[in-house]
Amino acid sequence: MTPRQAFDPKKHLPLYLVLDPQLCGGALGMVETTRAAIAGGASIVQLRAPEWKKREMCECARALLQITRAAGIPLVIDDHADVALAVDADGLHVGQKDLSPADARAVIGHDRILGLSINCVEEALVIEKGLVDYIGIGPYRATATKKDAGAALGATGLKAIVRAAGMPSVAIGGIKLEHVADVMTTGVDGVAIVSAVCGAPNPEAAARALRTALKATGV
Amino acid sequence: MTPRQAFDPKKHLPLYLVLDPQLCGGALGMVETTRAAIAGGASIVQLRAPEWKKREMCECARALLQITRAAGIPLVIDDHADVALAVDADGLHVGQKDLSPADARAVIGHDRILGLSINCVEEALVIEKGLVDYIGIGPYRATATKKDAGAALGATGLKAIVRAAGMPSVAIGGIKLEHVADVMTTGVDGVAIVSAVCGAPNPEAAARALRTALKATGV
Repeated sequence: MTPRQAFDPKKHLPLYLVLDPQLCGGALGMVETTRAAIAGGASIVQLRAPEWKKREMCECARALLQITRAAGIPLVIDDHADVALAVDADGLHVGQKDLSPADARAVIGHDRILGLSINCVEEALVIEKGLVDYIGIGPYRATATKKDAGAALGATGLKAIVRAAGMPSVAIGGIKLEHVADVMTTGVDGVAIVSAVCGAPNPEAAARALRTALKATGV
Repeated sequence: MTPRQAFDPKKHLPLYLVLDPQLCGGALGMVETTRAAIAGGASIVQLRAPEWKKREMCECARALLQITRAAGIPLVIDDHADVALAVDADGLHVGQKDLSPADARAVIGHDRILGLSINCVEEALVIEKGLVDYIGIGPYRATATKKDAGAALGATGLKAIVRAAGMPSVAIGGIKLEHVADVMTTGVDGVAIVSAVCGAPNPEAAARALRTALKATGV
């Protein structure tokens, strides 16, 4: 198993897979979706399972790491820095109500990736940039997979936040194949995808089509 | 502020306060309940708020630590080892579906207290004793404050688990003042109290009465 790698936004952010336990059909489905999505071109994977207890999350994360490490792709854990430490994941993603970036960084150390969710320009202006490696900006469109997401930003809203933040970013929220070109005009480094891969009949083909669409935008 | 202290089961376990956000009326109520319960004789405090996000939990834990450190009482965080690390709490308490004791110990290090919930003899027989400092055994009675608690153990069930585990323990689950004498016949080192203090009109008086009842049993 290869060790954790240094974060490279241009390499890792283009096709950011966020696993959804329900859409994937549980832990085994998440493992299969990850394998398929990486074969199709996913460049980073986030384990997000807000309803799960941590014992199950650690088990699933360890199974995912077997795949992601072999592929040289980072695995990021949503919310739970303790799970990230326990399984030696590559990084952590926090929202505005999770551990603060300063607390998160103190817990995970300086060698792991730290991502932060941003919903508005005000949040972008107060990001502690020495602490956070990338931001996830959203929702681009209204989304069913994240209960507490704010109002849809669209390309205009995304662009304003990208400019205010001035740091590596991905867009998230209801992004399908047909939105990739529009999203990539905003200056983000990639698209974070949930249902367009996790809910696809063929996740590998879905990821490959997204990757092709990203390539057409110059990424 | 005094530093973290070494865990002393005989000193710390007799009156174990588990804070309940709803019964206490939120974070401020939890701080006030803690202050009052310690004045009345609480010997350890657990912050348990399964519905909360971690930003709020860290804020509350930091406020609680101001009180508990000044009193020389350990503060233990339920479930979230990352919160325990972020705020430098004295310990962590995990259930059977939370981080495994091995993972929890690896994350929090060897200088913090680690507690584990136990519901049956089978779980007691597989405890990794070098890793876990104490166990919480329950429920003694049916309880409304923990949704996923198992069937009531009573004194007979408690005693069987205390014997099987052979390590420091507290009983938990619906324990009121009138149950203390019965519970303490089982060999536990103390009683973990939720509603009998958090839901009391006068938490300090409630804690003091419990402490008096414990003293009558020789603790």
